[in-house]
Amino acid sequence: MIIVIQCADRIGLVAAISTLLSQKRCNIISMQEHVDKGEQLFFMRVEIDKTEDAEELQQALQEILPDGAIVKVNPEAEKKVIVLVTKEYHCLADILVRNYFKTLGASVQCVIGNHNNLQNICHRFEIPFYYIPFAGDKQGFEEAMRDIIAQYDYDYLVLAKFMQILSADFVGRFNKQVINIHHSFLPAFAGASPYRQAYERGVKLIGATAHYVTDQLDEGPIIAQQIIPANHSHTVQDMVKAGKEIETAVLAKALKLVFDDRVFVYKNKTVVLE
Amino acid sequence: MIIVIQCADRIGLVAAISTLLSQKRCNIISMQEHVDKGEQLFFMRVEIDKTEDAEELQQALQEILPDGAIVKVNPEAEKKVIVLVTKEYHCLADILVRNYFKTLGASVQCVIGNHNNLQNICHRFEIPFYYIPFAGDKQGFEEAMRDIIAQYDYDYLVLAKFMQILSADFVGRFNKQVINIHHSFLPAFAGASPYRQAYERGVKLIGATAHYVTDQLDEGPIIAQQIIPANHSHTVQDMVKAGKEIETAVLAKALKLVFDDRVFVYKNKTVVLE
Amino acid sequence: MIIVIQCADRIGLVAAISTLLSQKRCNIISMQEHVDKGEQLFFMRVEIDKTEDAEELQQALQEILPDGAIVKVNPEAEKKVIVLVTKEYHCLADILVRNYFKTLGASVQCVIGNHNNLQNICHRFEIPFYYIPFAGDKQGFEEAMRDIIAQYDYDYLVLAKFMQILSADFVGRFNKQVINIHHSFLPAFAGASPYRQAYERGVKLIGATAHYVTDQLDEGPIIAQQIIPANHSHTVQDMVKAGKEIETAVLAKALKLVFDDRVFVYKNKTVVLE
Amino acid sequence: MIIVIQCADRIGLVAAISTLLSQKRCNIISMQEHVDKGEQLFFMRVEIDKTEDAEELQQALQEILPDGAIVKVNPEAEKKVIVLVTKEYHCLADILVRNYFKTLGASVQCVIGNHNNLQNICHRFEIPFYYIPFAGDKQGFEEAMRDIIAQYDYDYLVLAKFMQILSADFVGRFNKQVINIHHSFLPAFAGASPYRQAYERGVKLIGATAHYVTDQLDEGPIIAQQIIPANHSHTVQDMVKAGKEIETAVLAKALKLVFDDRVFVYKNKTVVLE
Repeated sequence: MIIVIQCADRIGLVAAISTLLSQKRCNIISMQEHVDKGEQLFFMRVEIDKTEDAEELQQALQEILPDGAIVKVNPEAEKKVIVLVTKEYHCLADILVRNYFKTLGASVQCVIGNHNNLQNICHRFEIPFYYIPFAGDKQGFEEAMRDIIAQYDYDYLVLAKFMQILSADFVGRFNKQVINIHHSFLPAFAGASPYRQAYERGVKLIGATAHYVTDQLDEGPIIAQQIIPANHSHTVQDMVKAGKEIETAVLAKALKLVFDDRVFVYKNKTVVLE
Repeated sequence: MIIVIQCADRIGLVAAISTLLSQKRCNIISMQEHVDKGEQLFFMRVEIDKTEDAEELQQALQEILPDGAIVKVNPEAEKKVIVLVTKEYHCLADILVRNYFKTLGASVQCVIGNHNNLQNICHRFEIPFYYIPFAGDKQGFEEAMRDIIAQYDYDYLVLAKFMQILSADFVGRFNKQVINIHHSFLPAFAGASPYRQAYERGVKLIGATAHYVTDQLDEGPIIAQQIIPANHSHTVQDMVKAGKEIETAVLAKALKLVFDDRVFVYKNKTVVLE
Repeated sequence: MIIVIQCADRIGLVAAISTLLSQKRCNIISMQEHVDKGEQLFFMRVEIDKTEDAEELQQALQEILPDGAIVKVNPEAEKKVIVLVTKEYHCLADILVRNYFKTLGASVQCVIGNHNNLQNICHRFEIPFYYIPFAGDKQGFEEAMRDIIAQYDYDYLVLAKFMQILSADFVGRFNKQVINIHHSFLPAFAGASPYRQAYERGVKLIGATAHYVTDQLDEGPIIAQQIIPANHSHTVQDMVKAGKEIETAVLAKALKLVFDDRVFVYKNKTVVLE
Repeated sequence: MIIVIQCADRIGLVAAISTLLSQKRCNIISMQEHVDKGEQLFFMRVEIDKTEDAEELQQALQEILPDGAIVKVNPEAEKKVIVLVTKEYHCLADILVRNYFKTLGASVQCVIGNHNNLQNICHRFEIPFYYIPFAGDKQGFEEAMRDIIAQYDYDYLVLAKFMQILSADFVGRFNKQVINIHHSFLPAFAGASPYRQAYERGVKLIGATAHYVTDQLDEGPIIAQQIIPANHSHTVQDMVKAGKEIETAVLAKALKLVFDDRVFVYKNKTVVLE
């Protein structure tokens, strides 16, 4: 059973929490905690070896923690996700395969695409696919997505190479639940054609970043980042290909961390308790 | 102030420790703990924001912990090390530089070499160097080293590319305090000329391993390991050169972990609480 | 158009080859060559910007090269592969997805499994799956596989987590065309339960190796190797999971190199011209 | 003997060069070449097994190459470098140690610092140190450095954590010969306190970049880049420390590549023929 706690820091928190668990005869299998001294914030993830009544345990914890504490007991119940895509298959296929073999740590409810070329792979895995073309009317486009999303129970939106910029209004409604994979380079290249810019600049590394989407877009809290080496022999196309491999790996890693309840968000950053 | 604890596991340990610290108004800055379920062993490293009386705190902790608990309070006081070398400079020079600039986390007391070509670099840094040639008489050789070591107060022996195999008798006297850097490959190559074997085998990675030395030699608990890519264009000499870079980095990392009191040893393995 | 050459080394080879190409007005886009001085062997991969008559060009090259030279012109035509599996899905699914989206660099002809749990994923991608249970009769088992293999035109057998040891007789018939992914550790662990051994030993890295299978098994020429960090918090199960991620990545990389005609084999090693 | 060539591309270059070498009975040990198709530029590095008359060979090569070809024969003669520093020791100490043990691939002529705390380590290695404080008069400061530099024969200026921005005028005089190590992050942080910015942003990687300095500063051709993982538990100070390790490693790697004549510069990028 997993317990995650995020609250204001004060002396004695670990003592109070562990004493409560000890009184309930719960053995702690693993416990990671972090304190942001500057912000006076406390973060903890505990795994215990017993199955307690979740609601009761949560209430007991709330009572011994500072006001405003965020406490989740047993969030390990299967998460539900909706995936947004455009044309590129690599991240989606990885998610569909893990979903099919029950190793994703979440259950894919449906896929929404603004192109229809990924419909077939979804159907092969019996996942509903909704094709919502973007015809220049952003408001109508987002409303159509919202109508579909509203039909499902879900915990996270995953932008698996969804190449449309979402409006702050749209994102605002899903705050902290939207996860994106970004083709970010070293140094980071803003604007269009990042791979061409990277090529022109002769970078020796290609990177990718998985992050929560806030209404600032591309600026949300970072969950995971990785890189692979590049060199002069890579054409722009080679860099795009290599980028896809690293994007797939980084998004997979970030989703695993999120679905395992290891990622805490505050201000514009994350604490990842591995 | 740092506290490290290693003891038999039981329910309520974290509660007991954190309650004690809380009663003493110590705020926990960071706490990492690990339980080996199979061995029923508990490991913890705590950093607190106050300076307590070390002896008193240790005694208080011993009283609430299972019998046989190993408790160290404030082991952060500067460690002292003696370095053993043969001919290769790379690990020693890195240690001497960090020692000189006070970033090693320990203080080098002296260097003992079975060749004398590293005497000059030691003298440049005003570190005593003892030249003890190995002339085939292992017992005499080790006795000569022991005589020098006996003149110093020290916490660790660091074998910084010391290419003589130490007798079980010698090692036995320094158990868990001897740290070695080993040129280990993927797959590992035992015996002489590991780099030639690696070259013949066409490995694509070169690795190094820092480990505690037990009387089994080359078989002690692993502290840190790293690799760098290799390929067909590397000659044996190139592999040796690349190996030196990685050996330097791995030993530096391992020493930092050890001197920061992050490494716990049991059976033939380590817990590294980073 | 790709040209690969492997032959005895002698002065003037690059001059002879590049002069021939120049006379045919072929511009060299990229050229990588390697000489093993010890073995006096020459390896070259050239990419030219023109489409020449492959047979004619090969013959012209043979004439200017030492006797016994291996010359392949335009091997870039699509490769055909047969995949052997047992129960684990990770490598197979990655291959099937890339095959479906035409990014594998080869075409999967069929899959043979000694368990049937991967039949469904194959059928979803319309790839023939043959279930050949292993019931203790190795000879009969291998004959049954050979009968199926004989029905297909193919270039490579890929062992994508095929957990049966193939007989030297079986492997001998497919020499240098059989590619395996091996869960190799640092240090390498032979025999059963490598992950348990790695766990007991407390390794700090987990690795995987893709290699050609020779009749020595697990001892063939290495194509690619990679590692990921591990630590004390990993259970054996965690190591198995992490191992699967790295196995998938390493096999994908190795297959890309092989299908791009970048891997040369001699003695028990490879030259990989990237 | 090493030969490096950079010139306009045309059909037959490799043939012409290798034929010339063959006629002189030079065996090619290794040859790497690269063509930038967009720019129609040809780059080559050849290692031959004979010692030819350098001047004669260079002239012979110039005659068969396009006008304006840059040809260097035997640039392997020891390079000479001048190192500029401020206060941080890590890169300088690494360079001094390699210089002392003759593994730098170049010879350090002198060190110039705008603080004097690195004077002592230079004197320990018998390398002249010049202390030129910066008192707000940039022109005077640069003139004082130029006066010292003018006393030495040298090939490269190495900015080993030299924290003063050099004027375009100063840099212009040393174009393509000035190498800098830059603490660049993912995403890159411009301006002051990059580590604080990285901390605030919660990056999961810390990087460093070695590059040639042009009059655009921090914008010159990239030679090498590397990263190390970071996480929420790193304070700003931890990031600074980790950054120093990676800065040392990246600068060492870049200098090795440059001193081995493996780095070619054009436009704002490099070709690194490894």
